Amino acid sequence: MAEEVILLDVRVSMFCLRVKIALAEKGIKCEYIEQDLQNKDPLLLKMNPFHNKVPVLIHNGKSICDSLIILQYIEEVWPEKPPNLLPSDTYHRAQARLLADFTNKIHGCGWKICLWDGEKLEVAKKELVEMLKVIEGELGDKPYFGFGGERFGFVDVALIGFYSWFIVYEMFGKFSMESEFPKLSAWAKRCLQKESVSKSITDIDGNKTYQYVVQSRKRLLARQ
Amino acid sequence: MAEEVILLDVRVSMFCLRVKIALAEKGIKCEYIEQDLQNKDPLLLKMNPFHNKVPVLIHNGKSICDSLIILQYIEEVWPEKPPNLLPSDTYHRAQARLLADFTNKIHGCGWKICLWDGEKLEVAKKELVEMLKVIEGELGDKPYFGFGGERFGFVDVALIGFYSWFIVYEMFGKFSMESEFPKLSAWAKRCLQKESVSKSITDIDGNKTYQYVVQSRKRLLARQ
Repeated sequence: MAEEVILLDVRVSMFCLRVKIALAEKGIKCEYIEQDLQNKDPLLLKMNPFHNKVPVLIHNGKSICDSLIILQYIEEVWPEKPPNLLPSDTYHRAQARLLADFTNKIHGCGWKICLWDGEKLEVAKKELVEMLKVIEGELGDKPYFGFGGERFGFVDVALIGFYSWFIVYEMFGKFSMESEFPKLSAWAKRCLQKESVSKSITDIDGNKTYQYVVQSRKRLLARQ
Repeated sequence: MAEEVILLDVRVSMFCLRVKIALAEKGIKCEYIEQDLQNKDPLLLKMNPFHNKVPVLIHNGKSICDSLIILQYIEEVWPEKPPNLLPSDTYHRAQARLLADFTNKIHGCGWKICLWDGEKLEVAKKELVEMLKVIEGELGDKPYFGFGGERFGFVDVALIGFYSWFIVYEMFGKFSMESEFPKLSAWAKRCLQKESVSKSITDIDGNKTYQYVVQSRKRLLARQ
């Protein structure tokens, strides 16, 4: 039976991107339905009653929500499709889950950088820098985060989803990822050489993400 | 070889309680080392460099952090020890992870109820009530959350960790769980009949948790 795999998607979302990369890694075909978060589709509300957020993966009519939960679902439902994202060792699997969860925090901190100015901006920048230092420390001199650093895995998928957003954080925060985090920058370039990543990231110069942030900033600041 | 299982614990923590219940469910013996969060032990800082938070499970010298990640670790590392917490079906496993993640949000909202007054308290109460409505809706008329409602599982462990805290939220928020959420209240009583739960929850009347909150409230308000 042909499988139906649909992703309720927002093109600029780092969380949706994670799912697209994981599906591409496993070679699973998927239909994408772009969502307008300002005018939510009843399908999204029905499929994600907890949060009404993307991504939502609809697999044969059933919905799975939250990007990291979807990644684990993809791993578990198509175990026969290599490459795996999570290691088989239970301890390393727990560590990968912990670090992937930690990368989620970049999102909230990054929005502060995009929205705030002056002293508050500096506080948010410091918070992001501290976070990225921890993450870069975990990478060390290894080529990837996954599988003891040997290959692209769960944490790599979780973090590379932020690729276009890092460019935007640099623009609003006025800092350079390349000079502040040379190892993370080299890792990101390495990830981009993978077809699953390069074909999924459509906003390679961050321009569309920047435009999205500028629009969101206008809307959010107008509400205050 | 004898296994070393240690929990860096704080007795009033709902997140530590989850781990204790999961270990009790599987019949795994554990040594508890109580932590003082106001004066953090170097062991905690070493074992949880990401967050310096409890719970931390130390299994044969290796540390695993974050209560829900620890629960999954326990499930994966001792698969031969019934009862399981997560269902074998991939879709139901994803749903259990999503709802358990959702229960985490109670913590932040609950602190607002304990710390705030007046209009802000009312907003926080409304937020908690909305959250609990969603959770009660998921329970419906089933005896448990786990395994299609048939038995105690991952979400039950995650939520019952809040048992003593619900009493405290009622006291500060001036509402009654029993009358507002009769199904959740009946579910909590049902959980308490399980030995793994009743032996793990040491603050059955919420008094110690209340004292802890009063002390924390004094300390936090003095800082403002």
